[in-house]
Amino acid sequence: VKTRRYRRRSVPLIETRRHLEPGPAVLVTSAWRGRRDVMTMNWHTVMEFTPALVGCVISEANDSFDLVRGSRECVLNVPQRELLDVVVGIGTTHGTRVDKFARFGLATEEGEVVKAPLLPQCYASFECRLHDARLVKKYNFFVWEVVRAWVSPTPRRPETVHYSGEGVFRVAGATLRRDVGKLL
Amino acid sequence: VKTRRYRRRSVPLIETRRHLEPGPAVLVTSAWRGRRDVMTMNWHTVMEFTPALVGCVISEANDSFDLVRGSRECVLNVPQRELLDVVVGIGTTHGTRVDKFARFGLATEEGEVVKAPLLPQCYASFECRLHDARLVKKYNFFVWEVVRAWVSPTPRRPETVHYSGEGVFRVAGATLRRDVGKLL
Repeated sequence: VKTRRYRRRSVPLIETRRHLEPGPAVLVTSAWRGRRDVMTMNWHTVMEFTPALVGCVISEANDSFDLVRGSRECVLNVPQRELLDVVVGIGTTHGTRVDKFARFGLATEEGEVVKAPLLPQCYASFECRLHDARLVKKYNFFVWEVVRAWVSPTPRRPETVHYSGEGVFRVAGATLRRDVGKLL
Repeated sequence: VKTRRYRRRSVPLIETRRHLEPGPAVLVTSAWRGRRDVMTMNWHTVMEFTPALVGCVISEANDSFDLVRGSRECVLNVPQRELLDVVVGIGTTHGTRVDKFARFGLATEEGEVVKAPLLPQCYASFECRLHDARLVKKYNFFVWEVVRAWVSPTPRRPETVHYSGEGVFRVAGATLRRDVGKLL
């Protein structure tokens, strides 16, 4: 798959919610002890503006589980629809012997804080450090603190993909604006 | 606001994720000790298929906080774009003396399990019981178990609204299908 690479810029961490709160499918990258992995993940939520906290479920069944738990780091990368086949391919490929980056033609960049690779074919990447592991044992639920946010200035309204199960995705469509006063 | 009421049917709990995983804005209803409230909520994630678990942040700053914590119940109602002005109105109205149901013309129905009212102007409603309160104190994060799922057979592809902050919503748009094999 040949897709464009975005030139992302560091943006204030408070802007993280703009990209994750709508609920897009995310590619989670991780690295630990010479291994690296990438997985598709849809079970995430913003939890706080400052610090910028994001909670997500990464199941033990995923090859990435040991890497994110061991390294206590990950990167949340947000793809657009142009990467949908990669998102699905990664979501349906398992096995620690497969280099999913090579198989799916994913370029990588180094982060500033974490060792997990960033994906420049995604319009946004969020470097994360583990903030709270209390619910990992029971729910595989990790609370992350976003420590660097990288976002491409374009597109202004990304066509993110939102998973509905059973192979069905919805693409972010029309933009509607409303006055919310002083609220974020 | 005069909007249609949906005739929702009870569906298997496993179908909850189909409606919440894409990340729509949700109206949370609650009732406790003779009081009731409705709030707009965007910070939620699916956490498990069976039992059907959903985690969400309900801030202490919300009038609903005491009601959901006290009753240990709530209903997650999923609106379409036709209710956007109600979603924004509720999200920007505060005060325990305001009956938000009356102010925003919300009809209500009784649930089968919980005492919080269901909203038939939403195409789907999920009755929830508190499953885990361990992260409430630190993050206002509630883990709910969905105990009844009510979904209208139409529309098949609801036009949910997804909040991006600063008054900007994206409407669920194009549907894309991919083969995901035996995966859910």
